[in-house]
Amino acid sequence: MKWFRHELRVRYQETDQMGVVYHANYMNWFEIGRTELIRELGITYREIESRGLRLPLIDLHAEFKGPARYDDRIAIFTQIRDFTPIRMTFASEIRRLDELDAEHSDPEEHPGRLLVSGTTRHVWVNHNWQPVRLDKASPDLFARLAEWAGS
Amino acid sequence: MKWFRHELRVRYQETDQMGVVYHANYMNWFEIGRTELIRELGITYREIESRGLRLPLIDLHAEFKGPARYDDRIAIFTQIRDFTPIRMTFASEIRRLDELDAEHSDPEEHPGRLLVSGTTRHVWVNHNWQPVRLDKASPDLFARLAEWAGS
Amino acid sequence: MKWFRHELRVRYQETDQMGVVYHANYMNWFEIGRTELIRELGITYREIESRGLRLPLIDLHAEFKGPARYDDRIAIFTQIRDFTPIRMTFASEIRRLDELDAEHSDPEEHPGRLLVSGTTRHVWVNHNWQPVRLDKASPDLFARLAEWAGS
Amino acid sequence: MKWFRHELRVRYQETDQMGVVYHANYMNWFEIGRTELIRELGITYREIESRGLRLPLIDLHAEFKGPARYDDRIAIFTQIRDFTPIRMTFASEIRRLDELDAEHSDPEEHPGRLLVSGTTRHVWVNHNWQPVRLDKASPDLFARLAEWAGS
Repeated sequence: MKWFRHELRVRYQETDQMGVVYHANYMNWFEIGRTELIRELGITYREIESRGLRLPLIDLHAEFKGPARYDDRIAIFTQIRDFTPIRMTFASEIRRLDELDAEHSDPEEHPGRLLVSGTTRHVWVNHNWQPVRLDKASPDLFARLAEWAGS
Repeated sequence: MKWFRHELRVRYQETDQMGVVYHANYMNWFEIGRTELIRELGITYREIESRGLRLPLIDLHAEFKGPARYDDRIAIFTQIRDFTPIRMTFASEIRRLDELDAEHSDPEEHPGRLLVSGTTRHVWVNHNWQPVRLDKASPDLFARLAEWAGS
Repeated sequence: MKWFRHELRVRYQETDQMGVVYHANYMNWFEIGRTELIRELGITYREIESRGLRLPLIDLHAEFKGPARYDDRIAIFTQIRDFTPIRMTFASEIRRLDELDAEHSDPEEHPGRLLVSGTTRHVWVNHNWQPVRLDKASPDLFARLAEWAGS
Repeated sequence: MKWFRHELRVRYQETDQMGVVYHANYMNWFEIGRTELIRELGITYREIESRGLRLPLIDLHAEFKGPARYDDRIAIFTQIRDFTPIRMTFASEIRRLDELDAEHSDPEEHPGRLLVSGTTRHVWVNHNWQPVRLDKASPDLFARLAEWAGS
């Protein structure tokens, strides 16, 4: 499936006294990448929540290959690896860009240096944390995911 | 009024690449101190929220005199500086303890070195962010505050 | 003096269970605004640190007028309120934009709704936390500040 | 190998608008558990860093079984799963305690409800991020790890 690209700058608050980004922050960046991929589908995660749906994590795996540093230009690449009406799996890559890398290049090209890669698995639940089928609860969102996946 | 003392250790994640605690984290510690003072009153902030009350900040002032570092033993001193049925003001001090300072000393003594001091002003609101009078909304909590203040 | 404008989206991790942005995060945003204003001067805060200089806070004041929420479009307005070779004061405003507000408007116009305003005072120190005079330690940076201030 | 137990309370700042702890914070808690286990060995991680050693993550896996909420009493259980002179693997469990669970019980008993479990793999490096052998770089620390592991 397609990759979606979103950029950010490393914040001072995200560094620690090792002089690099504290490892838990990469998990926040994975989440920001998922949020922006969903916005690209034409719906916001805020809107999804307002429909009473939630998409909590059930499983996380990450490999750390190199550290990000303060003020680095970072590209988060996010992919829907797999989805059913009940579950979703995202793959994520955190890459450090050079200052000269173009801002809007083909998201299928992954420039820069790979720092962290990982996957997160999620399950659709309602506001009471009961599992729901997305194709019943929000057919239009399910259709957009299917369309993105098939394109 | 009386001071309440609560201790914590500086977390690695709270440091930044300057090798000290990132400044915004002291505001979290002020909040932890307020939470623990309220627990000392015999009620938890969680319970207060379950009654539909909230106590958001409207004003914050802090002076930074020296940095805290990773793994430092920190004492947060918190005082109710002022309160009415509508508003509350807390004063806070962040102090670095020596490893040898006693854990449970008189909270009126302020050992160690003062790192940060500040005040926060708050207003009581309901879950719709409308102002409420605490003496009407939660008379028992108001009575405990008055008792603490008078003692 | 001139205001500098920088935009961001509220991150999920920045919210708390009140359904709004946890108050300490506004202090991070103030800092991001200062960082981006300095980048606008033609130098990065990373470069300033690599010269052995630091700009820690000594004083912070903030007024909270309304909460930011998840996924809100936020504009941070930052101004150098005052500076000497030894100290700097920044003023900051956090404003919520409508989705329709233009991305690159005149930074002297402050659109949207004011959520938080504040000031931070800072002192120039070296890597040993000793005070330094910026006009001696980094004359080109001092000149750029003076130029920005006078323009 | 033995488990080490360390307790904390969920902080307000750790919650998000779902009303539960934001997932990345469990990674911070894993790290706090590792720090406190090392303190139990009779050495602090601060001291390890002052010897020029670092222990960055290279791999993280976590399973999320249920959410922690504000003010919950949490026990972090940490175990050295495996170690060589070059690498270490820790296992971690995050459990929610009842208010009535004893504070200092046998760390081999794991009371409460399991919320998150995971493993982290680490490599010993020097301050230039070059791999080092712990038995050469810090024989006393290596001996304490071996003693803990064998006991």
